[in-house]
Formats: sequence, C-alpha cells, structure tokens
Amino acid sequence: MPDNQSRPVASAVPLPPVFETLVVVGPGLIGSSVLRRAREFGGLARRVIAVDVSPEVRARVSELGIADEVMADAAEAVAQADCVMLCVPVGAMGPVAAQVLPAMRPGAILTEVGSTKVSVIEAITPYLRPDVPYVPAHPMAGTEFSGPDAGFATLFEKRWCLLTPLDNTPVEAVDAIRTLWERCGARLREMTPAHHDRVCAIVSHLPHLLAFTICGTADDLADETRSEVLDFAASGFRDFTRIAASDPIMWRDIFLLNRDALLEMLARFMEDAQAMARAIRWGDEAYIVDRIERGRKIRKSLIENEQA
Amino acid sequence: MPDNQSRPVASAVPLPPVFETLVVVGPGLIGSSVLRRAREFGGLARRVIAVDVSPEVRARVSELGIADEVMADAAEAVAQADCVMLCVPVGAMGPVAAQVLPAMRPGAILTEVGSTKVSVIEAITPYLRPDVPYVPAHPMAGTEFSGPDAGFATLFEKRWCLLTPLDNTPVEAVDAIRTLWERCGARLREMTPAHHDRVCAIVSHLPHLLAFTICGTADDLADETRSEVLDFAASGFRDFTRIAASDPIMWRDIFLLNRDALLEMLARFMEDAQAMARAIRWGDEAYIVDRIERGRKIRKSLIENEQA
Repeated sequence: MPDNQSRPVASAVPLPPVFETLVVVGPGLIGSSVLRRAREFGGLARRVIAVDVSPEVRARVSELGIADEVMADAAEAVAQADCVMLCVPVGAMGPVAAQVLPAMRPGAILTEVGSTKVSVIEAITPYLRPDVPYVPAHPMAGTEFSGPDAGFATLFEKRWCLLTPLDNTPVEAVDAIRTLWERCGARLREMTPAHHDRVCAIVSHLPHLLAFTICGTADDLADETRSEVLDFAASGFRDFTRIAASDPIMWRDIFLLNRDALLEMLARFMEDAQAMARAIRWGDEAYIVDRIERGRKIRKSLIENEQA
Repeated sequence: MPDNQSRPVASAVPLPPVFETLVVVGPGLIGSSVLRRAREFGGLARRVIAVDVSPEVRARVSELGIADEVMADAAEAVAQADCVMLCVPVGAMGPVAAQVLPAMRPGAILTEVGSTKVSVIEAITPYLRPDVPYVPAHPMAGTEFSGPDAGFATLFEKRWCLLTPLDNTPVEAVDAIRTLWERCGARLREMTPAHHDRVCAIVSHLPHLLAFTICGTADDLADETRSEVLDFAASGFRDFTRIAASDPIMWRDIFLLNRDALLEMLARFMEDAQAMARAIRWGDEAYIVDRIERGRKIRKSLIENEQA
C-alpha cells in the first residue's frame, strides 16, 4: 500500500474488526468521523454503510468516499448490519429508532451518540426488542462545525466517551461498543444516565446556554455599543463566542431534552450570580475575592489535570 | 549592535522619544510591558524609572534590567519625570495620585492605565493640579498572568488602547499619550469615560464575572460531580476558565469600581437567561433557536472583523 508510511502505527498491525457491517445513521460531524476512523485506521468494521435522509448529504458522503455504501433507506441498510449507530440530533433519536429497530437482525447491537442520555433512552425504549442489545454512548468530542465535511478520523483521540448501559444491557454488547470507541482513540467511562445528564449540564450545556445568552444580550445593546462589542471582544467576550457558534438545532434539542438537569444547574448558577451582584452592590470584598479564588483554583486543577 | 538583526524594522530608524523621563508606578504585567517596549523598541522615553512599594518587585525589576532606575519613593521619582504613568490596581489609583501629584513638575503629564474610567477619574480628580495635564487611558491588553515577569514588549501590538480625556485635557497632552501608545503598537480610540465603562462592562467585566461564577457553581457541587467537571471540562466549561484565572485583587477592584455599569449589564443578562430558562421549561423552540442564531451571528461578525 503506497500510503502506508504516512499512516499511524496502529494500522500497521491490523486488528480483527469489532463488527462485520457497521451502519452509521446520520453522517454529520460525529458520524462521518466514525466512518473516517473505520476507513483510515481499521479495526472498527469490515464494511461501513452511511444512511441519511438528505440527498445532499448522501451525495457529499459518496464524493468523500468515506463509506462502502451510502443509502437513503435506513431499514434496508440496517438489515445488513451487526451494529447500528444513530448519530442524528437527540430530538430525532426516537423516530429514527422506531424506523430502524424492526428491521434489525436478531443479535445486532443498537448504539447511539446522543449528548443527553435520560431523554434519548426514554425516546428509544418503546421500540426496543429483547433480541437487540442497546448500548447508549456519548463521545464527548466536537467542534463548532457540523456536517459530513466537518468530521475527521482523529476527532475522538484522548477524548472521553461515556457509556450509560441499562440494567439489562448484556455485558458483551457493552464490551463491543467500548472496544469500538477505544479503537477510535477515546477514553471510556461508565455512569448512570441520570448522572451523565447532570455532569453534562454543568460542563457543557450550561456553558453553552450562558454563551448564547451573553451574545444575545450584547446583540440587544444600542447600535453604537454593539459595534464596539465586536471591536473590543478580545477582552474576554471572545472566549464565550467560540462555543456560541455551534449548531442551533442540535443545541435546541439538547436544551429541551436535558431540561431538568440543565434548569437545576442554571438555577444554582443564577443564585450564585445574584449573590455576586449583591456583593458588588454592597461592597462585600471578602465574598468577591473568595469567588474569584475558586475560579482560579478550578483553573489550576484543570491545568494539573492536563485538561486546560 | 550585534542583536540588531533580530529586532523589528521599526527600531532601525530611531524615533525621537515622546518623553525625556517616563516614570512607571507599578511595574506589573502592564507597567513592565511598557518598560520593556521602551527598552526594546525605543521611541517612548530617553529614560525610564520604575517605582514600586514592594521590595521584591523592585529587586525583580532590577534583575530583569528593564528600567534605568528602580525606586521606592514615588515622590522622588516623579520629580524627575515629564510623564508619570500609574499602572497600579484601579483601587489604588486615588491614593497613589495623592502621593505623586504634589511632587510632579509643572507641565509634566499624568496618565494611568486603569480598566475602569469613571471611578478612577473620580478618585484622581481631587488631587489634580491645573499645571499637570491628566490623560486617562486604558490599554485593552493582558494575559491571565501578573507581576513584572509576566510582561513583554509586544503585549500591546494590534490591541486597542482607549483614551477618555476630560473636557479640559489639553490636546497636546492627549496627542503625546496617543503617540506613546501608537509606538507600543496599539490601535487608539477616544470615547467618554461613561461610555468606556459600559463597553468594558459587556465585553470584559461581565464575561469575567460569569466565568468566576460558573467555576464557583461547579466547585459547590457534590464531590463526585466536581471531580468529573475537571475530567470532562473540554466540553465547553474549559473555555470559561481561562479568563477565570485572572488576578483576584485586580478583578475585585474592577467589579467594585465599575459597579453601576456592570450591575446594569448583569441585570440585562439575568433577564435574558431567565427568559431562556422559561423557554426551555415550556418548550418554546422558536425562542431558543433565535437566541442561538444570534450567538452564531455575533461569532460570524467577530470572524469577519478579524477579532476571533
């Protein structure tokens, strides 16, 4: 193979693939990155099929050459698979599961990559079959870009993938999905769906909500000040806008589908922000310094934790 | 000069310096960067004197060799200067002005670099002399580090420096300070002190307040979740922590001294966040998408504006 030398060492020792035929429904940022990983690094599946309802997305995936087959009919595709991975927005997981589950082979594994877990599991549960193991997963990776062009084979490297298996999920199915994500370069952790949703509410969903909100607050200012926000954004505002560039439909769904955990974290945050406002109004220096010190402490822990 | 080739082209054509003797009171991140700029690029002052109350800071500045003289007595130092630049925390501007102004030469210029302008001007005004022009300035540059070791000569390049002259500030004094900052590589803009404070409240002070607050909210969570916040911070939370690493005393002072503008912006933000919470609770998809779209629009404008 002429391009062998430029490939990572991992592919020099071919691993037997985890699956025979992997179907990725929704080859967007995450789905197309899984397809690319399978193609470029091996070890995931002998054959990968991409399914999408959009003719434009299908045409683009064909052009990119990242799947062995590109299909419009999910039922037809999943009938060939021993693993089906749903990579659609969290709001679409239920309807798509309703469509694919009846067509799946007995023993084939269903998995998905939704950013919320309690609501996605609730949406999928009515359609589950006893002979199709279901392994909910959440690869915590992404960029502010979306669509099949945005993916890349190393997206998941050193990123976390959280598994939230159900009480009755067979351990072999969990192990297969764990191996698949390990071969994508991810670090794995297991937790309950409810705990997952609380953790993601504070580390991801609340920061995004605050980022969208402050952009809106700035956008509502009088014209002169608004244009200056753009000029002078480097002073802190800019840091909040990178994550505010993310896909609106995806985030609408996440906010609505992790509602309870997100509203709880937002309520805690609002109490803390009100307390800070009160300390500023009344000149409570000790309170202000204490809160700032905590921020610095967390930053320091992140640096020590090699997450910064 | 053996190291001439590694220097920027600008220093090849020596400019007559703006000042004879520049005194920098408080050689921290900003002050030491001005000293380094004067030393490495020329054109600012023939002679630079650093003043600090801390023996440790004075010793360090002497070691670094970034000032012609390092002094403890501000009055003694400023008596030699035709420009005195106060680079102390905004809360210290008044007391330091009270100390230096009586000792300044007639016609010498007083300037400062405070991040809030209305309150700093109020604090300095009682000590002003009719024969000492005062030019308030705010170089919008910084890192999360502080102290004389944190500075560097190119800190101000392509960054904004806002001038907020008073009605009676002589235009020659404003021009001299403008030229000084231009020679530091900064872009200049003039505005009123009150407008400055509103703009900085939204682009800098509110983002910092939110960043400190969310770190505190995370820190208050149960131990297990808190440790996971650190593990999974890459999902958005991390972006908020960089600015939360800034100096606590500096930020305490900024929050207290830009209280009115900051509380107004925070109140607007809280209303917007409450509206978002309500939309999430009641499933108002159109509202949520509209707010997210605005965030994306602002991000896009920043990229077009080359500020991202």
